[in-house]
Order: sequence, then structure tokens, then C-alpha cells
Amino acid sequence: MDIFITTYHSYHYRVKRHFSTMATLVAPSNHSPQEDAEALRKAFEGWGTDEKSIIGILGHRNVYQRQQIRKAYEEIYQEDLVKRLESEIKAEFEKAVYRWILEPADRDAVLANVAIKSGKNFHIVVEIATVHNPEELLAVRRAYLHRYKRSLEEDVAAHTSGHLRQLLVGLVTSYRYVGDEINPKLAQTEAEILHEAVKEKKGSQEEAIRVLTTRSKTQLIATFNRYREIHGTSITKKLLEEGSDEFQNALYTAIRGFTDPIKYYEKVVRNAIKKLGTDEDALTRVIVSRAEKDLKFISEAYYKRNSVLFEHAVAKETSGDYKKFLLTLLGTEE
Amino acid sequence: MDIFITTYHSYHYRVKRHFSTMATLVAPSNHSPQEDAEALRKAFEGWGTDEKSIIGILGHRNVYQRQQIRKAYEEIYQEDLVKRLESEIKAEFEKAVYRWILEPADRDAVLANVAIKSGKNFHIVVEIATVHNPEELLAVRRAYLHRYKRSLEEDVAAHTSGHLRQLLVGLVTSYRYVGDEINPKLAQTEAEILHEAVKEKKGSQEEAIRVLTTRSKTQLIATFNRYREIHGTSITKKLLEEGSDEFQNALYTAIRGFTDPIKYYEKVVRNAIKKLGTDEDALTRVIVSRAEKDLKFISEAYYKRNSVLFEHAVAKETSGDYKKFLLTLLGTEE
Repeated sequence: MDIFITTYHSYHYRVKRHFSTMATLVAPSNHSPQEDAEALRKAFEGWGTDEKSIIGILGHRNVYQRQQIRKAYEEIYQEDLVKRLESEIKAEFEKAVYRWILEPADRDAVLANVAIKSGKNFHIVVEIATVHNPEELLAVRRAYLHRYKRSLEEDVAAHTSGHLRQLLVGLVTSYRYVGDEINPKLAQTEAEILHEAVKEKKGSQEEAIRVLTTRSKTQLIATFNRYREIHGTSITKKLLEEGSDEFQNALYTAIRGFTDPIKYYEKVVRNAIKKLGTDEDALTRVIVSRAEKDLKFISEAYYKRNSVLFEHAVAKETSGDYKKFLLTLLGTEE
Repeated sequence: MDIFITTYHSYHYRVKRHFSTMATLVAPSNHSPQEDAEALRKAFEGWGTDEKSIIGILGHRNVYQRQQIRKAYEEIYQEDLVKRLESEIKAEFEKAVYRWILEPADRDAVLANVAIKSGKNFHIVVEIATVHNPEELLAVRRAYLHRYKRSLEEDVAAHTSGHLRQLLVGLVTSYRYVGDEINPKLAQTEAEILHEAVKEKKGSQEEAIRVLTTRSKTQLIATFNRYREIHGTSITKKLLEEGSDEFQNALYTAIRGFTDPIKYYEKVVRNAIKKLGTDEDALTRVIVSRAEKDLKFISEAYYKRNSVLFEHAVAKETSGDYKKFLLTLLGTEE
């Protein structure tokens, strides 16, 4: 079953979102935004007392329904639900709820901003720039401008330098051609350009950056395939063999983001779970961002790779309301 | 009198165009698109026989009316008026008519493409990227994708290299913050960054490119003003004193495009007219692009600077139907 919802945003654009069975989110077909808003208000008045109803409501509302709740909340209480939540973030649970309630583009703007300011999580910026289609990426840029009064590329450029800057700025500002046409000759030439950059041949990076930041995804995938044919190994494997500075890490994330977002995300959650102490930020990011998109596929990929159910792994690594909320978004009520 | 027209484009976006008394175009408030289409059909069937009615119709229709005519033409003759014109371009007159009939974003896409392929007219790319507001620039990028099945930045990057490439790609992919907020401290620091780049201090270009490709126009103008306060001369004058390679020419055009599009365009037409043999491409480009925007201001600036009426200068340098058409767009029937 495929449902298309067209959302009208305040900043003059339309996004067609695709909700499909790849999602894990379980949302009822009807609900009362007013009643939801009132129930949330009550729950927020005593954070720590009624997380259950927060999870019960927000954990079962899709992006359109959450927008309706936000509108109803504003009408009844003259207060922005998102701003309210923003001021209440204490622990992982509140953070996850706050991330979740944001519209996808706005959420990515927040994620990108936090990453840029951290000065080290640039892979999140690369993820946003490569996993999305051109219109989605544009929506993130608009949301970023709207929220921070600066452009996404402005903040990226101000926090980086050299080839890393060139690559990141090129990725976030791209507006690629979407189509199936491939130029096999280009794939051949540009596979070699990438090969030289991977081997850190001096002066080769700029051309590799040009290729990765301007070609269509279909063309890039053809180029990566050509690379494997020529060199007998994938470009990502080759990249892992050669060192791993920030630039090469960004290259690696970009190529994985272009090629196979499901596998990319599976690796993100796998690493998050494997990590001593668990990387909650990464876990929350993937679950919240993909729950109404393709989290079912990511979950299947996880099982295939690790022989452990994703929801079991999540349940083992988390606790309390945070755990309940993530599992709800995963479509598994305990 | 200000008239706002909202145009819906086929590729899912809306543009609010602002028609004001800065325009020179004289268009009737009502017309019959069907009759216009039929009259044009007749005239096209004998190019060289009835240019007068082509000028009489198209020289007096605004962007919305031209779209209506294009639609009517397609309905009646099952043929795209623009494609038809495209195939008939022989001389300056046909070229000007063809440029004129395109929607502004599509026209800019064509102008940019021709400039990129020429390998030398990159100032036209810079002009498009700096004179427009962020939404207009985005519309050009969409039109470019739509028309050429490649992105604007893809073609720019493939035809340039080094700092010139970085600057041009950064300019065409920018999506700047629009607002009045200024950071005076940044203006101070970044005026010095620009100064070092103008003086061709080694390694200073990348930071100058970052500033010019990411900051808001308001912030950039504050930076240029700060530059003049510190150095007692404008940054553009300083640029003219130092050499003039392609990179510096692009810098120069960008700064003028940001600061004062009217003065910028005045200089373009002044140079076009001064040139031995006249630069018809430049003359056509400015008149056709600005006739329903701010050509009256450009014309006034021309008179102020040259003590010659712009329409007289145009009349002197051109002839035949081409001359008649340009003068019609200038609001001056002979």
C-alpha cells in the first residue's frame, strides 16, 4: 500500500512524500489533533510522570498528523509545541521526542547544525547531502536558512577548510540531475579520476570532488561499478585500505550514501550498538529519520548481517522511556 | 503602479514576479492569446516578410502573456512555439525574438549554457548568479536541469578548473540568506580576507571564495563598504589596478553584480555600444532580460553617464528589424 501526501510548507514549496510499507511506524488513519494536543499538554506539565501517553500519541503519528497536532497545540495554547519541547530536553528520551516531532527537513537542519558545531561529525552532513534526493536536500537548505538565518553552506564553509571544505560545500549545495541516462565513457574516465584521488595522488582531489559533487547519482553508480570492474575491488574497500583522514572519511560516507542508503544506515546502527556505552545520538538519528521511510529495510539488513533482530539489539542497549519510544517507532510494542 | 503576478511553473514551484514602473515594456492589459498565436504563425511562415507583426505582438506582451500565447500556439498547431523559433534563428533579430519569448529562468539557462560552451564568457554565469535573488537563481538551475539533463554546476565545473571553478561553482550553487541582519565584526575580518585575495597573496583565494559564495548580499555589501573605509578606495577599483586574469574578472563581475546591478548593466551596454562593430549579444541580453524588470533605471543610468539617450545609442548602433524590436522593448516606437 502506497500513500502519497502532499504537504504545503510555510516557505513556498511542496514536497511529495512517499509513505510505504518500508516504514516501521504504525499510525492510525484518523485521530483528533485537538485531543492529542491536550493530552500532550497534560503530559508535558509533568515530564517524568506521563511519558507513556507521550509515547502512545507521538509514537503513532505520521509526519502529516504531527503537523496537525502542532497546529492544534499552537491554536489552543498560543505556544509552539516544538519550542516548548526544545526547552525541555534533558535526557535521551526528550531528545528523541524532540527530533521526532520536527518535520523531516527541519530535523535534518538541526542535525546538520549540531554536527557542524561539533567540528567532527561531518559524516552526518555528508549523509544528509547524499541520501536525499535533490528536492529533499533543497528542503533541508530552506529549513536551515529559516531556522538559523544563515545558509547551510555558509556554516559548513566557516567550520572547514581545504579539500574537506570543497567536498562538503559541493555536496550540500548540489542540485543534481535525476534520470536514468548514463554516459559510459564518462564513467570510465571518472573511475580513473576517483582512483587517483583514493591513492592520494597529488592534485587529484579537485577533480574527484568535481565528479562527486556534480554528477547524477545514476552516473556515479555507473562510475563506481566501472571502478570495480577495472580494479577488481570496490572503491569503498580501496578507501578503507588507504589511510583515513577526515577527507577520506567524507569520501567514504558520500560513496556509501549514494550507492546504498539501506546498507549505509545498517552500518551506522551496527556501529552505534557495538560501541562501548552505545552511541545514542546515532541510534536516535537513524530510527527517528527513517521510521516512516525505510526503517523496515534497514532492520532486515541488520538481521541479515548480525543474526540478531534489530529491535532486540535496541532493547538490550537502551532502557526506560527512551527504549519504549524507540521500540514504538520500530513498530514493536513490548 | 506595482502589479504582482504569480506564475505556476510546470516544475512545481511558484515565482512571484514584480512588474513595476522600472520596466520599459509597454504591454496592453488584455489580448487574445489565440489571435496572437495565429498572427505569429502567419508571420513565421514567411520570415522576412512580416517582421512588423512579430514585433507588434511579441514586443508588447509581458512574461505571463507570452506564456499564454505559447500555450495557445501549442493547442492550435500541436507545435512548440519556442522549438519552432529555435530552429529559425538566422540573424540578430530572430535571436533576440527567441531570447525574449523564453521564460526568464529558461532564458538564463540558455544564456548560461551558451556562455559555458564558449569557454570565455564566464562573466555571464557570474551575472546570473549574483544579480538574481536566491529563488530566481534556483529557478534558473531547475530550468537548466530540465532543458539540458545536466546540472548547471556540472557544466560549469566540467569547463573550468582551479580557483575559477571554485568561485563559479560556489556562486551558481549558492542559496543565500536574505535578510537585513549584519555582523559588523565579520565585515571587518572578511574585508581583510578579500584584500589579501585582491593583492593575490598566495593561499588567500580560498577564503575569499568562501566569503563571496556563502555570505548574504547584505553582509557582503557591508564588507565592501568596510573595505572602502579601511583602504580609501573601493574593492572593484583595487581589482582593476591589480592584474586581470579570468579569476579576477569573475571576482570583479561578482562584486558589481552584488552591489549595484543597475550600474553593472549600464557598463555592460556601454561597452557593447562602444565596441567596434557593436556587441549585439550583450545588447540583446541586457535589453531582453531587463525590459520587464528595471531597464528604465539602466537607461537613466546610461544617460547620466554618457549624456546620450540610451535609445538613441541603440538606434545608432543597430538597424532593420533588430533595431525596431529592441526599441519596442525599450518602450520607444520610432
